[in-house]
Amino acid sequence: MQENYQQKTLGILGGGQLGRMLIQSAINYNIDIHILDPDANAPCKAIAHQFTQGSLTDFDTVYSFGQACDVITIEIENVNTDALQKLADEGKEVFPQPHLIKLIQDKREQKQFYKEKGIPTAKFILTANKDEVIANADFLPAVNKLGREGYDGRGVQLLRTTADLEKAFEAPGLLEKLIDFDKELAVIVARNKRGELIAYPAVECAFHPTANLVEFLFAPATVSSEIEASAKQVALRVIESLDLVGILAVELFVTKGGDILVNEIAPRPHNSGHHTIEANFTSQFEQHIRAVMNMPLGNTELRSAAAMVNLLGEEGYTGDAIVEGLDDALAEKGVYVHLYGKKTTKPFRKMGHVTLLDEDLGQLKRRAMEIKEKIKIKA
Amino acid sequence: MQENYQQKTLGILGGGQLGRMLIQSAINYNIDIHILDPDANAPCKAIAHQFTQGSLTDFDTVYSFGQACDVITIEIENVNTDALQKLADEGKEVFPQPHLIKLIQDKREQKQFYKEKGIPTAKFILTANKDEVIANADFLPAVNKLGREGYDGRGVQLLRTTADLEKAFEAPGLLEKLIDFDKELAVIVARNKRGELIAYPAVECAFHPTANLVEFLFAPATVSSEIEASAKQVALRVIESLDLVGILAVELFVTKGGDILVNEIAPRPHNSGHHTIEANFTSQFEQHIRAVMNMPLGNTELRSAAAMVNLLGEEGYTGDAIVEGLDDALAEKGVYVHLYGKKTTKPFRKMGHVTLLDEDLGQLKRRAMEIKEKIKIKA
Repeated sequence: MQENYQQKTLGILGGGQLGRMLIQSAINYNIDIHILDPDANAPCKAIAHQFTQGSLTDFDTVYSFGQACDVITIEIENVNTDALQKLADEGKEVFPQPHLIKLIQDKREQKQFYKEKGIPTAKFILTANKDEVIANADFLPAVNKLGREGYDGRGVQLLRTTADLEKAFEAPGLLEKLIDFDKELAVIVARNKRGELIAYPAVECAFHPTANLVEFLFAPATVSSEIEASAKQVALRVIESLDLVGILAVELFVTKGGDILVNEIAPRPHNSGHHTIEANFTSQFEQHIRAVMNMPLGNTELRSAAAMVNLLGEEGYTGDAIVEGLDDALAEKGVYVHLYGKKTTKPFRKMGHVTLLDEDLGQLKRRAMEIKEKIKIKA
Repeated sequence: MQENYQQKTLGILGGGQLGRMLIQSAINYNIDIHILDPDANAPCKAIAHQFTQGSLTDFDTVYSFGQACDVITIEIENVNTDALQKLADEGKEVFPQPHLIKLIQDKREQKQFYKEKGIPTAKFILTANKDEVIANADFLPAVNKLGREGYDGRGVQLLRTTADLEKAFEAPGLLEKLIDFDKELAVIVARNKRGELIAYPAVECAFHPTANLVEFLFAPATVSSEIEASAKQVALRVIESLDLVGILAVELFVTKGGDILVNEIAPRPHNSGHHTIEANFTSQFEQHIRAVMNMPLGNTELRSAAAMVNLLGEEGYTGDAIVEGLDDALAEKGVYVHLYGKKTTKPFRKMGHVTLLDEDLGQLKRRAMEIKEKIKIKA
């Protein structure tokens, strides 16, 4: 059988850092990458085979973009799924499938899906508007989530007490029971058209001791083998229930009672999988390519314990980005810096990430915190 | 100190697979890569920030190309060094230094340099022309090497007996004693402007049992720790004696008596270092970037034993390339395929390589041979 992956064109909706890292993998397979992104200076622009500046949510733009591609995928959820569906109906390979992107775009649809399929998730109530949220004040403490168009933390409002109720969203959403979790994990899974399924080892979020902030991510997670297995099982159940082809990042809570609850899912490479580039046998980016191009899926085992620190723009700095502290970091064994090609920084903007490899978990965590202190993105 | 690597432009003379893999590394550091290559379809073209089609040996072309760059380097030796020297004189950072590229371009200069610096190498006689080779028939068995413009095996003529003498080169060259070596190794070393020096673990060539052909390369080399240390030492001595900034691949013979002799050197990433992408803490490509951009050099330790198999165009096939056997290979754990973006195949053309990771050396070698049989590039 002749595998002609390299004679195929893969179109990616979205040209940010996720697309950039997808391109770094695709280069090895002679796959031509076409990128669509509204930003003329998108991270993918210089290295894509072809770059189109345009709106990801516009029907005509997406439909027209897809014409030159054999396979189409996404690196961001907020895309026009009607255009993708038309492309799929006309014979293009679109993964993940457009109807699944559409489902995932709506958190209300997501939660109802989990409920229908018996996938464990925090209890929730659908709310049509702010009044309905207020009417369910006894459900607090809860998280008010927007149904559609919420991403990267926006569209998620913590409502601890009735005093918070005035912050509730007007638009349709849901109220989800606030989980006093023991740990927050992520498991990335993938599935190709042949039905092959894989799961990555769980990644754990390391929280600030007092503030509710994630300092860094690390793998392997410090959980029992039963919980590791449960987490993987739940994540696999989600992708199988969806019948999704592609990659799926499943964010999970481990309750104090040891139960696994699905929090959020993303049908694309994810922040919780960046360490896989150096730490696992197959990176999530390579895996995404393999899944959508119908190549065999790759081994997901860890080669080394690893931690991943996001490099966010420093508070108080906006303008041409300067990275401080790189020299010291780069001199260390097992430190891998990834800058995302973004010329301009602004507070908290994802400008890059650093992965550390270290087999000693205590040392790994200590070094992760040091790297966080050492590398600063200013202007 | 603010490290502004990402605000610098690195120009690379040569746009083949070595440049392509350099770009894959440079992406992580926001370094803009400009490529110069005579081939409009060069492997680097689609992914370079800027691609210029032009001759690498033409003074004006190279000089003009360098204007837009901060740092200039090479991925092939056959370049115009006068233009590079002018660029260096005018303040551009050119690494490796032009006079060293010029020296290395001439095998006669190389060998005399080793002799002067007491670097061990096979005995040799300089020969001005074919007559002088014939006049030294008693020096046989020997290798007749062209002084200049010999590369990739051309410009190297084996002269075992007097019957072979008629194949000797007309142009100035040298006769080098044919070494009945025990092993053929390669050690890659690097040095940056700060004077930091590193050496990679030695790589060993696995030969066909009867034909004088290298089947694959593997690391770590199966040599004693003394020979490993000697090999590294000799390679480091070469780069230090040259005072070279950049990366240097040193091909060595290990004689039956356990002595190390320098065979050839290349001041750029090398075939013998491709496995380092997955097998070592820092790849040779990343290291090259670090060396010429004056970043700290990276750790060179092996993360795993590895073998590297070149994917050469199959005999009898010329035309649009098709890769057979990929599926099976990709399904295996620890198999990494790198295709070089060359649309057209021809017999023995370097179309890609495969790296295997396996801690079991016997299994590693067996799998390397299987991969060689399995993956074929046809048309």
